[in-house]
Amino acid sequence: MTIKEIVLKNRSYRRFHQDVRIDFNILKELVELTRLSASGGNIQPLKYILSFESEKNERIFRNLAWAAYLKNWPGPVEGERPAAYIIVMGDKKLKDSFGYDPGIAVQSMLLGAVEKGLGGCIIGSISKDSLRKDLNIANQYEILLVLALGKPKEIVIIEPLGPNGEIRYWRDDDGVHHVPKRSLEELIVG
Amino acid sequence: MTIKEIVLKNRSYRRFHQDVRIDFNILKELVELTRLSASGGNIQPLKYILSFESEKNERIFRNLAWAAYLKNWPGPVEGERPAAYIIVMGDKKLKDSFGYDPGIAVQSMLLGAVEKGLGGCIIGSISKDSLRKDLNIANQYEILLVLALGKPKEIVIIEPLGPNGEIRYWRDDDGVHHVPKRSLEELIVG
Repeated sequence: MTIKEIVLKNRSYRRFHQDVRIDFNILKELVELTRLSASGGNIQPLKYILSFESEKNERIFRNLAWAAYLKNWPGPVEGERPAAYIIVMGDKKLKDSFGYDPGIAVQSMLLGAVEKGLGGCIIGSISKDSLRKDLNIANQYEILLVLALGKPKEIVIIEPLGPNGEIRYWRDDDGVHHVPKRSLEELIVG
Repeated sequence: MTIKEIVLKNRSYRRFHQDVRIDFNILKELVELTRLSASGGNIQPLKYILSFESEKNERIFRNLAWAAYLKNWPGPVEGERPAAYIIVMGDKKLKDSFGYDPGIAVQSMLLGAVEKGLGGCIIGSISKDSLRKDLNIANQYEILLVLALGKPKEIVIIEPLGPNGEIRYWRDDDGVHHVPKRSLEELIVG
Protein backbone atom coordinates (compact mmCIF):
# COMPACT_ATOMS: atom_id res chain seq x y z
CA MET A 1 0.00 0.00 0.00
CA THR A 2 1.10 3.58 -0.57
CA ILE A 3 1.23 6.00 2.34
CA LYS A 4 -1.90 7.65 1.02
CA GLU A 5 -3.77 4.34 0.93
CA ILE A 6 -2.63 3.58 4.47
CA VAL A 7 -3.55 7.05 5.72
CA LEU A 8 -6.98 6.69 4.10
CA LYS A 9 -7.52 3.32 5.71
CA ASN A 10 -6.32 4.70 9.05
CA ARG A 11 -9.64 5.95 10.40
CA SER A 12 -10.40 6.31 14.13
CA TYR A 13 -12.03 2.94 14.78
CA ARG A 14 -13.97 2.43 18.00
CA ARG A 15 -15.56 -1.00 17.46
CA PHE A 16 -13.49 -4.10 16.96
CA HIS A 17 -13.58 -7.86 16.55
CA GLN A 18 -12.53 -8.31 20.16
CA ASP A 19 -11.89 -12.02 19.66
CA VAL A 20 -9.10 -11.33 17.16
CA ARG A 21 -6.16 -11.24 19.53
CA ILE A 22 -3.09 -9.06 19.13
CA ASP A 23 0.05 -10.52 20.58
CA PHE A 24 2.94 -8.93 22.41
CA ASN A 25 5.27 -9.08 19.41
CA ILE A 26 2.89 -7.06 17.24
CA LEU A 27 2.76 -4.36 19.92
CA LYS A 28 6.54 -4.38 20.20
CA GLU A 29 6.83 -3.93 16.44
CA LEU A 30 4.61 -0.86 16.71
CA VAL A 31 6.72 0.62 19.50
CA GLU A 32 9.79 -0.07 17.36
CA LEU A 33 8.28 2.29 14.77
CA THR A 34 8.18 5.07 17.34
CA ARG A 35 11.68 4.27 18.51
CA LEU A 36 12.87 5.02 14.98
CA SER A 37 10.77 8.18 14.65
CA ALA A 38 11.79 11.78 15.28
CA SER A 39 11.91 13.16 18.83
CA GLY A 40 12.39 16.80 19.81
CA GLY A 41 16.07 17.34 20.67
CA ASN A 42 16.35 13.57 20.28
CA ILE A 43 15.55 13.23 24.00
CA GLN A 44 13.19 10.25 23.34
CA PRO A 45 11.23 10.76 26.56
CA LEU A 46 8.24 8.57 25.71
CA LYS A 47 7.66 5.24 27.42
CA TYR A 48 4.99 2.65 26.71
CA ILE A 49 2.84 0.17 28.58
CA LEU A 50 1.57 -2.68 26.39
CA SER A 51 -1.64 -4.56 27.13
CA PHE A 52 -3.07 -7.50 25.22
CA GLU A 53 -4.63 -9.72 27.91
CA SER A 54 -8.29 -9.43 28.74
CA GLU A 55 -7.96 -8.65 32.42
CA LYS A 56 -5.44 -5.85 31.90
CA ASN A 57 -7.41 -4.61 28.88
CA GLU A 58 -10.49 -4.31 31.09
CA ARG A 59 -8.58 -2.29 33.69
CA ILE A 60 -7.62 0.15 30.93
CA PHE A 61 -11.00 0.19 29.18
CA ARG A 62 -12.90 1.32 32.26
CA ASN A 63 -10.78 4.46 32.45
CA LEU A 64 -11.45 5.68 28.92
CA ALA A 65 -14.16 7.94 27.50
CA TRP A 66 -15.27 7.29 23.94
CA ALA A 67 -16.50 9.46 21.06
CA ALA A 68 -17.51 12.74 22.71
CA TYR A 69 -19.91 13.60 19.88
CA LEU A 70 -21.92 10.36 20.10
CA LYS A 71 -23.94 11.36 23.13
CA ASN A 72 -26.01 8.19 23.34
CA TRP A 73 -23.12 5.80 22.86
CA PRO A 74 -21.11 4.98 25.99
CA GLY A 75 -18.42 3.11 24.07
CA PRO A 76 -17.97 -0.33 22.58
CA VAL A 77 -19.91 -3.22 24.11
CA GLU A 78 -18.26 -6.41 25.31
CA GLY A 79 -17.26 -8.33 22.17
CA GLU A 80 -16.48 -5.12 20.24
CA ARG A 81 -13.81 -3.74 22.53
CA PRO A 82 -10.14 -3.24 21.68
CA ALA A 83 -7.98 -6.36 21.74
CA ALA A 84 -4.93 -4.39 22.86
CA TYR A 85 -3.76 -1.04 24.14
CA ILE A 86 -0.58 0.97 24.10
CA ILE A 87 -0.40 3.58 26.85
CA VAL A 88 1.85 6.47 25.81
CA MET A 89 3.59 8.12 28.74
CA GLY A 90 6.16 10.86 29.17
CA ASP A 91 9.12 10.08 31.40
CA LYS A 92 9.45 13.13 33.64
CA LYS A 93 12.96 12.15 34.61
CA LEU A 94 13.93 12.89 31.01
CA LYS A 95 11.83 15.94 30.19
CA ASP A 96 9.12 18.19 31.65
CA SER A 97 6.95 18.46 28.57
CA PHE A 98 6.69 16.21 25.58
CA GLY A 99 5.85 18.57 22.75
CA TYR A 100 5.12 16.95 19.42
CA ASP A 101 6.63 13.57 20.23
CA PRO A 102 3.37 11.84 21.24
CA GLY A 103 1.60 12.85 18.03
CA ILE A 104 4.51 11.64 15.91
CA ALA A 105 4.64 8.39 17.89
CA VAL A 106 0.96 7.50 17.67
CA GLN A 107 0.83 8.26 13.96
CA SER A 108 3.78 5.94 13.33
CA MET A 109 2.11 3.21 15.37
CA LEU A 110 -1.32 3.60 13.78
CA LEU A 111 0.03 3.50 10.24
CA GLY A 112 1.99 0.39 11.17
CA ALA A 113 -1.16 -1.14 12.66
CA VAL A 114 -3.18 -0.47 9.50
CA GLU A 115 -0.52 -2.19 7.42
CA LYS A 116 -1.02 -5.27 9.64
CA GLY A 117 -4.79 -5.25 9.02
CA LEU A 118 -5.53 -3.62 12.35
CA GLY A 119 -6.83 -0.22 13.30
CA GLY A 120 -7.21 1.94 16.32
CA CYS A 121 -8.21 5.11 18.04
CA ILE A 122 -6.15 7.74 19.83
CA ILE A 123 -7.85 8.38 23.15
CA GLY A 124 -7.02 11.49 25.13
CA SER A 125 -10.04 11.42 27.41
CA ILE A 126 -8.64 9.26 30.19
CA SER A 127 -9.31 9.05 33.94
CA LYS A 128 -5.61 9.39 34.54
CA ASP A 129 -5.49 9.17 38.32
CA SER A 130 -7.67 6.11 38.29
CA LEU A 131 -5.73 4.46 35.47
CA ARG A 132 -2.50 5.15 37.34
CA LYS A 133 -3.89 3.44 40.40
CA ASP A 134 -5.42 0.51 38.49
CA LEU A 135 -2.17 -0.24 36.68
CA ASN A 136 0.16 0.85 39.45
CA ILE A 137 1.95 3.37 37.20
CA ALA A 138 4.83 5.21 38.89
CA ASN A 139 4.60 8.98 39.28
CA GLN A 140 7.70 9.29 37.15
CA TYR A 141 5.47 8.72 34.14
CA GLU A 142 2.93 11.24 32.90
CA ILE A 143 0.05 9.47 31.19
CA LEU A 144 -0.45 11.19 27.83
CA LEU A 145 -2.54 9.07 25.50
CA VAL A 146 -4.00 5.64 25.11
CA LEU A 147 -3.92 3.94 21.74
CA ALA A 148 -6.77 1.42 21.47
CA LEU A 149 -6.13 -1.32 18.91
CA GLY A 150 -8.00 -4.14 17.27
CA LYS A 151 -9.36 -5.53 14.06
CA PRO A 152 -11.91 -2.88 13.03
CA LYS A 153 -15.57 -3.86 13.00
CA GLU A 154 -17.06 -0.69 11.62
CA ILE A 155 -17.15 1.35 8.44
CA VAL A 156 -15.87 4.91 8.66
CA ILE A 157 -16.54 7.35 5.83
CA ILE A 158 -14.90 10.71 5.20
CA GLU A 159 -17.20 13.40 3.82
CA PRO A 160 -17.18 17.19 3.33
CA LEU A 161 -18.16 19.43 6.25
CA GLY A 162 -21.85 19.60 7.01
CA PRO A 163 -24.02 22.73 6.82
CA ASN A 164 -22.56 25.70 8.74
CA GLY A 165 -19.17 24.02 8.79
CA GLU A 166 -20.25 21.20 11.09
CA ILE A 167 -17.22 19.08 12.02
CA ARG A 168 -18.85 16.67 14.49
CA TYR A 169 -18.73 13.06 13.38
CA TRP A 170 -21.98 11.11 13.47
CA ARG A 171 -23.29 7.58 13.06
CA ASP A 172 -26.14 6.72 10.72
CA ASP A 173 -28.95 4.21 11.22
CA ASP A 174 -26.85 1.46 9.65
CA GLY A 175 -24.06 2.10 12.16
CA VAL A 176 -21.79 3.68 9.58
CA HIS A 177 -19.56 6.34 11.13
CA HIS A 178 -19.31 9.62 9.15
CA VAL A 179 -16.43 12.05 9.62
CA PRO A 180 -16.61 15.53 8.07
CA LYS A 181 -13.24 16.77 6.88
CA ARG A 182 -12.30 20.30 5.82
CA SER A 183 -11.31 20.73 2.17
CA LEU A 184 -7.70 20.97 1.09
CA GLU A 185 -8.37 24.54 -0.05
CA GLU A 186 -9.42 25.48 3.49
CA LEU A 187 -6.16 24.16 4.95
CA ILE A 188 -3.77 26.02 2.67
CA VAL A 189 -3.27 29.69 3.51
CA GLY A 190 -2.18 32.21 0.89
CA MET B 1 8.10 0.03 0.85
CA THR B 2 6.69 -1.14 4.17
CA ILE B 3 5.93 1.38 6.89
CA LYS B 4 9.01 0.20 8.75
CA GLU B 5 11.22 0.77 5.71
CA ILE B 6 9.75 4.24 5.25
CA VAL B 7 10.11 5.08 8.95
CA LEU B 8 13.73 3.91 8.83
CA LYS B 9 14.42 6.02 5.76
CA ASN B 10 12.69 8.98 7.38
CA ARG B 11 15.64 10.51 9.20
CA SER B 12 15.91 14.21 10.11
CA TYR B 13 17.80 15.50 7.09
CA ARG B 14 19.37 18.94 7.23
CA ARG B 15 21.38 19.06 4.00
CA PHE B 16 19.74 18.77 0.61
CA HIS B 17 20.29 18.90 -3.11
CA GLN B 18 18.87 22.40 -3.24
CA ASP B 19 18.70 22.36 -7.06
CA VAL B 20 16.18 19.49 -7.02
CA ARG B 21 12.99 21.49 -7.02
CA ILE B 22 9.75 20.46 -5.30
CA ASP B 23 6.64 21.75 -6.97
CA PHE B 24 3.39 23.03 -5.50
CA ASN B 25 1.49 19.82 -6.32
CA ILE B 26 3.89 17.69 -4.30
CA LEU B 27 3.38 19.94 -1.29
CA LYS B 28 -0.38 19.83 -1.76
CA GLU B 29 -0.26 16.02 -1.80
CA LEU B 30 1.57 16.11 1.52
CA VAL B 31 -1.02 18.42 3.06
CA GLU B 32 -3.72 16.08 1.73
CA LEU B 33 -2.16 13.36 3.93
CA THR B 34 -2.67 15.53 7.00
CA ARG B 35 -6.20 16.40 5.90
CA LEU B 36 -7.01 12.69 6.06
CA SER B 37 -5.24 12.15 9.40
CA ALA B 38 -6.72 12.19 12.89
CA SER B 39 -7.43 15.46 14.69
CA GLY B 40 -8.41 15.89 18.33
CA GLY B 41 -12.21 16.24 18.51
CA ASN B 42 -12.03 16.35 14.70
CA ILE B 43 -11.66 20.16 14.94
CA GLN B 44 -8.93 20.17 12.22
CA PRO B 45 -7.45 23.49 13.36
CA LEU B 46 -4.16 23.26 11.46
CA LYS B 47 -3.43 25.47 8.47
CA TYR B 48 -0.42 25.43 6.16
CA ILE B 49 1.74 27.84 4.21
CA LEU B 50 3.56 26.21 1.31
CA SER B 51 6.84 27.55 -0.05
CA PHE B 52 8.82 26.24 -3.02
CA GLU B 53 10.26 29.36 -4.65
CA SER B 54 13.73 30.53 -3.82
CA GLU B 55 12.88 34.01 -2.65
CA LYS B 56 10.14 32.84 -0.26
CA ASN B 57 12.32 29.91 0.85
CA GLU B 58 15.06 32.38 1.80
CA ARG B 59 12.64 34.44 3.87
CA ILE B 60 11.76 31.29 5.81
CA PHE B 61 15.31 29.93 6.06
CA ARG B 62 16.68 33.02 7.79
CA ASN B 63 14.22 32.54 10.64
CA LEU B 64 15.19 28.97 11.48
CA ALA B 65 17.78 27.55 13.87
CA TRP B 66 19.39 24.25 12.91
CA ALA B 67 20.71 21.27 14.84
CA ALA B 68 21.16 22.53 18.41
CA TYR B 69 23.79 19.89 19.19
CA LEU B 70 26.09 20.77 16.28
CA LYS B 71 27.60 23.83 17.89
CA ASN B 72 29.96 24.70 15.06
CA TRP B 73 27.43 24.24 12.28
CA PRO B 74 25.16 27.22 11.63
CA GLY B 75 22.94 25.32 9.22
CA PRO B 76 23.05 24.26 5.57
CA VAL B 77 25.08 26.38 3.17
CA GLU B 78 23.66 27.82 -0.03
CA GLY B 79 23.28 24.89 -2.43
CA GLU B 80 22.40 22.47 0.39
CA ARG B 81 19.33 24.24 1.69
CA PRO B 82 15.75 22.92 1.63
CA ALA B 83 13.96 23.18 -1.71
CA ALA B 84 10.61 23.68 -0.01
CA TYR B 85 8.93 24.35 3.32
CA ILE B 86 5.58 23.70 4.88
CA ILE B 87 4.78 26.02 7.77
CA VAL B 88 2.37 24.36 10.20
CA MET B 89 0.11 26.82 11.98
CA GLY B 90 -2.78 26.60 14.41
CA ASP B 91 -5.88 28.58 13.55
CA LYS B 92 -6.80 30.32 16.80
CA LYS B 93 -10.30 31.03 15.50
CA LEU B 94 -10.89 27.28 15.68
CA LYS B 95 -9.04 26.27 18.84
CA ASP B 96 -6.80 27.71 21.57
CA SER B 97 -4.31 24.87 21.73
CA PHE B 98 -3.44 22.26 19.17
CA GLY B 99 -2.52 19.22 21.23
CA TYR B 100 -1.21 16.26 19.33
CA ASP B 101 -2.45 17.36 15.92
CA PRO B 102 0.84 18.94 14.73
CA GLY B 103 2.87 15.83 15.56
CA ILE B 104 0.39 13.60 13.74
CA ALA B 105 0.37 15.98 10.77
CA VAL B 106 4.13 16.29 10.31
CA GLN B 107 4.63 12.55 10.62
CA SER B 108 2.05 11.93 7.88
CA MET B 109 3.75 14.49 5.66
CA LEU B 110 7.29 13.24 6.28
CA LEU B 111 6.41 9.63 5.57
CA GLY B 112 4.71 10.77 2.38
CA ALA B 113 7.78 12.79 1.45
CA VAL B 114 10.09 9.81 1.97
CA GLU B 115 7.92 7.71 -0.31
CA LYS B 116 8.47 10.37 -3.00
CA GLY B 117 12.26 10.17 -2.61
CA LEU B 118 12.40 13.31 -0.49
CA GLY B 119 13.20 13.91 3.15
CA GLY B 120 12.96 16.62 5.71
CA CYS B 121 13.39 17.99 9.16
CA ILE B 122 10.85 19.16 11.72
CA ILE B 123 12.05 22.52 12.97
CA GLY B 124 10.66 23.95 16.16
CA SER B 125 13.35 26.55 16.77
CA ILE B 126 11.86 29.42 14.81
CA SER B 127 12.10 33.21 15.15
CA LYS B 128 8.34 33.36 15.10
CA ASP B 129 7.77 37.10 15.34
CA SER B 130 10.26 37.72 12.59
CA LEU B 131 8.86 34.96 10.38
CA ARG B 132 5.38 36.35 10.88
CA LYS B 133 6.58 39.78 9.75
CA ASP B 134 8.64 38.46 6.83
CA LEU B 135 5.73 36.42 5.45
CA ASN B 136 2.97 38.75 6.58
CA ILE B 137 1.21 35.99 8.56
CA ALA B 138 -2.04 37.09 10.21
CA ASN B 139 -2.27 36.98 14.02
CA GLN B 140 -5.11 34.50 13.67
CA TYR B 141 -2.48 31.86 13.02
CA GLU B 142 -0.09 30.57 15.66
CA ILE B 143 3.15 29.44 14.07
CA LEU B 144 3.88 25.95 15.41
CA LEU B 145 6.45 24.17 13.28
CA VAL B 146 8.32 24.41 10.02
CA LEU B 147 8.83 21.33 7.93
CA ALA B 148 11.95 21.72 5.77
CA LEU B 149 11.93 19.50 2.68
CA GLY B 150 14.28 18.48 -0.08
CA LYS B 151 16.18 15.66 -1.68
CA PRO B 152 18.54 14.56 1.12
CA LYS B 153 22.26 15.07 0.61
CA GLU B 154 23.55 13.42 3.74
CA ILE B 155 23.81 10.04 5.37
CA VAL B 156 22.13 9.60 8.73
CA ILE B 157 22.88 6.55 10.87
CA ILE B 158 20.98 5.29 13.90
CA GLU B 159 23.11 3.80 16.65
CA PRO B 160 22.74 2.80 20.32
CA LEU B 161 23.12 5.47 23.01
CA GLY B 162 26.63 6.61 23.72
CA PRO B 163 28.47 6.21 27.05
CA ASN B 164 26.47 7.52 30.04
CA GLY B 165 23.30 7.45 27.98
CA GLU B 166 24.38 10.22 25.63
CA ILE B 167 21.50 11.11 23.25
CA ARG B 168 23.08 14.04 21.40
CA TYR B 169 23.48 13.44 17.69
CA TRP B 170 26.90 14.14 16.19
CA ARG B 171 28.62 14.37 12.84
CA ASP B 172 31.82 12.49 12.05
CA ASP B 173 34.81 13.63 9.98
CA ASP B 174 33.22 12.24 6.84
CA GLY B 175 30.10 14.32 7.42
CA VAL B 176 27.99 11.31 8.37
CA HIS B 177 25.32 12.23 10.90
CA HIS B 178 24.96 9.81 13.86
CA VAL B 179 21.78 9.62 15.94
CA PRO B 180 21.79 7.64 19.21
CA LYS B 181 18.46 5.92 19.87
CA ARG B 182 17.30 4.29 23.09
CA SER B 183 16.73 0.55 22.94
CA LEU B 184 13.28 -0.95 22.59
CA GLU B 185 13.70 -2.49 26.04
CA GLU B 186 14.19 0.98 27.54
CA LEU B 187 10.94 2.24 26.02
CA ILE B 188 8.66 -0.50 27.28
CA VAL B 189 7.67 -0.25 30.93
CA GLY B 190 6.65 -3.30 32.93
